[in-house]
Amino acid sequence: MPDGLGPPFAEPLFNRIALIGIGLIGSSIARICRRKGLAREIVAADSSAKVREEAAALALAGRIVATPAEAAEGSDLVILCVPVGAIGRAAQEVAPHLLPGAILSDVGSVKTAIIKAVAPHVPAAADFVPAHPVAGTEQSGPCAGFASLFHNRWCILTPPAGANPKAIARLSSFWKGAGANVEIMDASHHDLVLAITSHLPHLIAYNIVGTAADLEQVTQSEVIKFSAGGFRDFTRIAASDPVMWRDIFLNNRDAVLETLGRFNEDLIALQRMIRNGDGKSLFDLFTRTRAIRRGIIEQGQETAAPDFGRRTSEE
Amino acid sequence: MPDGLGPPFAEPLFNRIALIGIGLIGSSIARICRRKGLAREIVAADSSAKVREEAAALALAGRIVATPAEAAEGSDLVILCVPVGAIGRAAQEVAPHLLPGAILSDVGSVKTAIIKAVAPHVPAAADFVPAHPVAGTEQSGPCAGFASLFHNRWCILTPPAGANPKAIARLSSFWKGAGANVEIMDASHHDLVLAITSHLPHLIAYNIVGTAADLEQVTQSEVIKFSAGGFRDFTRIAASDPVMWRDIFLNNRDAVLETLGRFNEDLIALQRMIRNGDGKSLFDLFTRTRAIRRGIIEQGQETAAPDFGRRTSEE
Repeated sequence: MPDGLGPPFAEPLFNRIALIGIGLIGSSIARICRRKGLAREIVAADSSAKVREEAAALALAGRIVATPAEAAEGSDLVILCVPVGAIGRAAQEVAPHLLPGAILSDVGSVKTAIIKAVAPHVPAAADFVPAHPVAGTEQSGPCAGFASLFHNRWCILTPPAGANPKAIARLSSFWKGAGANVEIMDASHHDLVLAITSHLPHLIAYNIVGTAADLEQVTQSEVIKFSAGGFRDFTRIAASDPVMWRDIFLNNRDAVLETLGRFNEDLIALQRMIRNGDGKSLFDLFTRTRAIRRGIIEQGQETAAPDFGRRTSEE
Repeated sequence: MPDGLGPPFAEPLFNRIALIGIGLIGSSIARICRRKGLAREIVAADSSAKVREEAAALALAGRIVATPAEAAEGSDLVILCVPVGAIGRAAQEVAPHLLPGAILSDVGSVKTAIIKAVAPHVPAAADFVPAHPVAGTEQSGPCAGFASLFHNRWCILTPPAGANPKAIARLSSFWKGAGANVEIMDASHHDLVLAITSHLPHLIAYNIVGTAADLEQVTQSEVIKFSAGGFRDFTRIAASDPVMWRDIFLNNRDAVLETLGRFNEDLIALQRMIRNGDGKSLFDLFTRTRAIRRGIIEQGQETAAPDFGRRTSEE
């Protein structure tokens, strides 16, 4: 059955890929690697015995090991797929085992802090090319992954100054092979772009769900019952992995606080429009925000289906 | 083909239903009325010739007329499905034409302001029972409606003190017949519950999309490209009908400003956690918000499918 992911590669891009961490992202990479023949061999490492068992039951990799060092041994691409706060230590553990010419990469949602944590460990004979596939769901663990997660999504590479162009090109081919579009940008610009498109939305969603839970005049049961009015979409975002998101906010602090400052300024203006009964300004803002939505649908980052296809049946 | 909506009623609940306004909600009521046989006859009124043409092409009603007065004439249930700001005038227009014993209702998202605007016009021989079906999508117009919109959603009735219990029971049966669960509460409590579950989420979504559009260091093209990280869900909400939402904020000002004040207090605390690098408090909040999500899924107000079924294909 055609799945829209295209035929497998005739020749694998890498001999052996090591995935350090086999959760949502790591397991999705494993699935698309196998589906597209991106590597001759896949080795996965995870520190959790439960996760290793789940990954083994799903046959996600040829070998599943407990330590980053074992997985990195003999691999020509090593991708760190652990939470941002654990990446520095993972890099330190794999570094002595990297093959000459091997590429070390990651999938972290912040880039400046990761480069600072990883780069000092990378041996001269290996190439470090940081990457961030902008894709995910609110679920976690090896069972949550799927092969088409990166399909038509963007993967941002943020190579440090002086990075090897061949390694950048090779990693670009890998992510294109996985179905993604590739963009290259400076790490600090990445962190600002993601602060507004991802980190701030998550922060706001966590906050509003917390506010609703604490309102003493409205019961939690009422919040749940009447969530179809808009609130439930925030709860989906606010159900994302707590460790991953704690690490993102701790490691992209400056850009998050900067965009949050802008958000607050705008919110104060909006609050004043409501207080003053300024219908014209409200209407103008609500009309303007529709244009961005149209752009997202036109560029295939979302469907126009109403309410995310939640219709249970149709006339 | 079974559509989950159950068999039609053997005996219609109303002889003639008048729908004043035939947009997303009005046209969905028309569809479910026909599908379930809730009324012998449906008459729809809309002031827009274009909307009337669309509704006629979809055969949404037996008769489609231009004025509320014509539609109300001879109807035993009249539902005002126009934006909140237009409801008072619509009530004034239908009032002299209401049959003795007819029920006048509405579908507005705020209730205290609507009761204030409608109640003075209602003749003594008719019953006014305000209602709010908590269901909708970001789309508008007669083509956007569908019969299952209210299925397993809540419809809140907010009868004023002294309202006729028989009329309340009859309107409850109507909404249950349309597939909804019915809850009865005080109008001012409704306005507070909806402020947190619907109005504040929309306000925040409109605000963050506006903030993103105005950030001069990040281009609009970048915001659109990398929206899969969380932002796109906000753009869906912020694409909702501008007139409807302007009217909601103007007419539920006090409750919106109150919940917004709470949201702001919580956001300042969250901002401080990030500034101070307080990982433990961030983790605790992000863990706590997951419980609300679980409640929503358990109560059937959302599916657990990740990312709202946006997967294009699976392995």
